[in-house]
Amino acid sequence: MAAGARGVPATIVMPQDAPGVKRAATEAYGASVIPCEPTSAAREAAAAAAVAATGGRFVHPSNDPAVMAGQGTLALELLEAVPALQALVVPVGGGGLVSGCTVAAKGTRPGLWVTAAEPALADDAARSKAAGALAPAAPTAAATIADGLRTTLGPNTFPIVRDLVDEVRCVSEVEIRAAMRLVYTRLKVVIEPSAAVGVAVALSPAFRAAADAAGIQHVGVVICGGNVDPDALAGFLRAE
Amino acid sequence: MAAGARGVPATIVMPQDAPGVKRAATEAYGASVIPCEPTSAAREAAAAAAVAATGGRFVHPSNDPAVMAGQGTLALELLEAVPALQALVVPVGGGGLVSGCTVAAKGTRPGLWVTAAEPALADDAARSKAAGALAPAAPTAAATIADGLRTTLGPNTFPIVRDLVDEVRCVSEVEIRAAMRLVYTRLKVVIEPSAAVGVAVALSPAFRAAADAAGIQHVGVVICGGNVDPDALAGFLRAE
Repeated sequence: MAAGARGVPATIVMPQDAPGVKRAATEAYGASVIPCEPTSAAREAAAAAAVAATGGRFVHPSNDPAVMAGQGTLALELLEAVPALQALVVPVGGGGLVSGCTVAAKGTRPGLWVTAAEPALADDAARSKAAGALAPAAPTAAATIADGLRTTLGPNTFPIVRDLVDEVRCVSEVEIRAAMRLVYTRLKVVIEPSAAVGVAVALSPAFRAAADAAGIQHVGVVICGGNVDPDALAGFLRAE
Repeated sequence: MAAGARGVPATIVMPQDAPGVKRAATEAYGASVIPCEPTSAAREAAAAAAVAATGGRFVHPSNDPAVMAGQGTLALELLEAVPALQALVVPVGGGGLVSGCTVAAKGTRPGLWVTAAEPALADDAARSKAAGALAPAAPTAAATIADGLRTTLGPNTFPIVRDLVDEVRCVSEVEIRAAMRLVYTRLKVVIEPSAAVGVAVALSPAFRAAADAAGIQHVGVVICGGNVDPDALAGFLRAE
């Protein structure tokens, strides 16, 4: 969409199991989509081939500092809209969103508490933060319904998660589904499972107890990503 | 929800074919739901029986002046948020929403153009306005997917549609589905078919041509109603 607004051609490498609505929307906004096998190796190879073929500039979806900074503007807007915010919960996959939001939020509000939210089945960020070193992908990562969070932290996003994010909390698939169902039935907003992970953490007894203990009453949750195929939605909303 | 906030017991008569999520949400907000056959006669009988049994006050969903006024506050909020608005498109079934919005909008902005939006299969408001007298329900009314708009205008809502609403425009089932699909895939908002009828009118070539001819550039569309069972959603979003 940004490329289209500037009249710049865009080529997007997308796993072939991405939601059909995501691919359709990407193409409708004017991009060329190159499908690939849903592995990091296939994705990198397809991106390298596209760069070679088009002479374009490679833009990583999470580890590029400009992408991180751009995603961080979301936290600035949220803090502007809700100045009373004391905590922020942001899903973590590649870490672009959470690291950008953390730098932006703490730059303007140093005391703000930031929680990264991760599926327990893809808990590399939690393990990386606990170990103080980049951990490999969880062997169960492909099994989470939060497909946008299956990727791992990168060399630019990890240091921010390690040093600036206050904690990483994990939630189960059942909790992710319940959060998605709540947002669908009450807010009437379609969010993809990855976007529901932050809501699930915010609603979890452990997070609520910790927030209560810290006197935190105003919690912001970043809900980002609404690509759900209509045919898949009912399945996601089931309890398990 | 309003009754719960005031601690007043509420009994809601609901057609037995209403979406399951609608009934579940109503009960979760604290109301008792009485299901009935999906006909006006059955609904009125069930409501009368509930009033007799509980000693409660009957509240009509559209023809009650207080309900109409309450629904009109929606137009006030919209005009406050978007002062540049030149036209308003509001779905019409029983007419509570459109009459309330029209009175409120024209009271503060006399020159605002108001279009009532109706499914062609349930076009009693269009026929009533054309005839200058209350028309009976269309024989095809039960066939529209916009189940919230199958009802007809009442003695309090009709005069406002007749005298203050500028026009009634009808759309096809295909147009309603396309509007619902657009809102789902791009705005990521779940709206029920009845709520999509206003979007469908606003996007229709006939409305757009009329708006262009009148120099109208800022059109507000009231989107109201998000009760869609997840299992039914994909079917609604299909082209026909």
